[in-house]
Amino acid sequence: MSRASDPDDLFDAALAGDRGAIARMLSLIERGGEPARRVGRLSYARSGSAYTVGMTGAPGSGKSTLTSALIGHMRSLDIEVAVLAIDPSSPFTGGAILGDRVRMQDHATDPGVFIRSMATRGHLGGLALATPEAVRLLDAIGRRWILVETVGVGQVEVEVAGKADTTVVVLNPGWGDSVQANKAGLMEIADVFAINKADRKGVEETRRDLEQMLDLSELPADSWRPPILATVATTGDGVPELWEAINAHRTHAEASGQLESRRAFRAREELREIVAERLHQRARQICTGDRWEALTEAVAARESDPWAAADTMLDGVLDA
Amino acid sequence: MSRASDPDDLFDAALAGDRGAIARMLSLIERGGEPARRVGRLSYARSGSAYTVGMTGAPGSGKSTLTSALIGHMRSLDIEVAVLAIDPSSPFTGGAILGDRVRMQDHATDPGVFIRSMATRGHLGGLALATPEAVRLLDAIGRRWILVETVGVGQVEVEVAGKADTTVVVLNPGWGDSVQANKAGLMEIADVFAINKADRKGVEETRRDLEQMLDLSELPADSWRPPILATVATTGDGVPELWEAINAHRTHAEASGQLESRRAFRAREELREIVAERLHQRARQICTGDRWEALTEAVAARESDPWAAADTMLDGVLDA
Repeated sequence: MSRASDPDDLFDAALAGDRGAIARMLSLIERGGEPARRVGRLSYARSGSAYTVGMTGAPGSGKSTLTSALIGHMRSLDIEVAVLAIDPSSPFTGGAILGDRVRMQDHATDPGVFIRSMATRGHLGGLALATPEAVRLLDAIGRRWILVETVGVGQVEVEVAGKADTTVVVLNPGWGDSVQANKAGLMEIADVFAINKADRKGVEETRRDLEQMLDLSELPADSWRPPILATVATTGDGVPELWEAINAHRTHAEASGQLESRRAFRAREELREIVAERLHQRARQICTGDRWEALTEAVAARESDPWAAADTMLDGVLDA
Repeated sequence: MSRASDPDDLFDAALAGDRGAIARMLSLIERGGEPARRVGRLSYARSGSAYTVGMTGAPGSGKSTLTSALIGHMRSLDIEVAVLAIDPSSPFTGGAILGDRVRMQDHATDPGVFIRSMATRGHLGGLALATPEAVRLLDAIGRRWILVETVGVGQVEVEVAGKADTTVVVLNPGWGDSVQANKAGLMEIADVFAINKADRKGVEETRRDLEQMLDLSELPADSWRPPILATVATTGDGVPELWEAINAHRTHAEASGQLESRRAFRAREELREIVAERLHQRARQICTGDRWEALTEAVAARESDPWAAADTMLDGVLDA
């Protein structure tokens, strides 16, 4: 295993299949800064061939087990797969909920599977910007299928999962109030629904609910209507059908131009977010020093309101 | 009722107790732009006397009913109250989930109560920045208690509720997986816990869970430990105790200096966010035009990676 830490050397080692080098490059991406930029530049030129599948759903939906079962099915078809398990940090503690993802350990010794948890450790823009970079790295070193699994259904996670080429939303029979808050978000990103733990009662009601919501969303007649599959991840029931549905969506997306337009949209969005992030970085630099102290004191003394103070702060920083 | 639309005239009318004028000024804040800035300037100079209470919890926790019961209790003590019900827009649809908050209608005709739903309708920075402005307006026109109720437990809502002087987190017996994703965030903002619907089973288990989490959070010995109250909003059971707990926290916060330091911290954070928002606004202006088109095409053709393209885009926009 290469012990190099230079991104260029690591990239060469990763291209040669050195898993330690891949892991270390992903750590560089997580940490952000110049080394991450270098990894990004190296990856970008070589990427564009991988297909990404997002897996999202509420905690407890059996998403990890289903992802693991899907990996098992893909491996039985001799397909190599890389998995990024996305663990968002709490906005309050800065700490990451790093799961061990024990169920994924089934595949830990399989050289055709690469699994990695991702958290933010300083990357500007957080997981929303680090994840596409990690995907491009895996893409650049030759992985053709990349699964992106998110821990929960928070806004960041739905955003990240929704940026995949095909997004699978995992839910359970009796799916109800628990994810109410983000139902609209989930409906909007789903290309495939998996009703997991389908050996429990309530599958048909859940299916009806989903069909009704799809009816209400008034898809154009020729567009993709997300299929609704019943799965039991622990036994593998429905997993081949899930794989078929993912491939059916891929075929549709490629043929209809949806894949191309989605990717173009994502690329523009990413560029916009990076521009915004760079400006944020600038804001953090600005909001220090004597001038900043004087302005915050003026606001505290109610001599100035915050918007006026911000404009004063930015005077001479932004070109007109 | 004044039909003026000039912020200065409206402010005078609002100071004189014209509820229509207050409502229209809140609409100006929601819509953002120059009129909102003017309202902000008028409010800022006169604000600083109100005490804010945040009420947050998962949808279905009975938060609105509990807020309504708390209002009823405050009114029985002849205390005037203003309520802002915060409805965040979906990040995916742009639409607001405006609830009618039927249970609040009990207080609709009481002149000692002012209730208003807030959504973003163009305010830069969204509810995170519009809410403190709305609070300052109500403060400036003489409201001494302001309740800020949020619809759900998403990141924005937790942020908004956490910016109150005292934050009440409402949950239910058997509080479990449903809000797992944001448990850490809720724990961090809670000054008071209300286990609502406490006539159901599981109150003691939930209390034990919370106590355990509080033990794990290793609060300094002399700091405030959030009390855990059992309430039944529909009958009013536990509501006087909730009001007492809020006042106990207020007394602690005022005496310990926590209130002052929290407010100073919030003021700095708000200023920082406004600076960032101004930069965002500039980014939106930047990310258009021929130069932007050329750069996105270079990225699509993999001639440039997104970070390099963003830096090129910002060249000459930011002073060194």
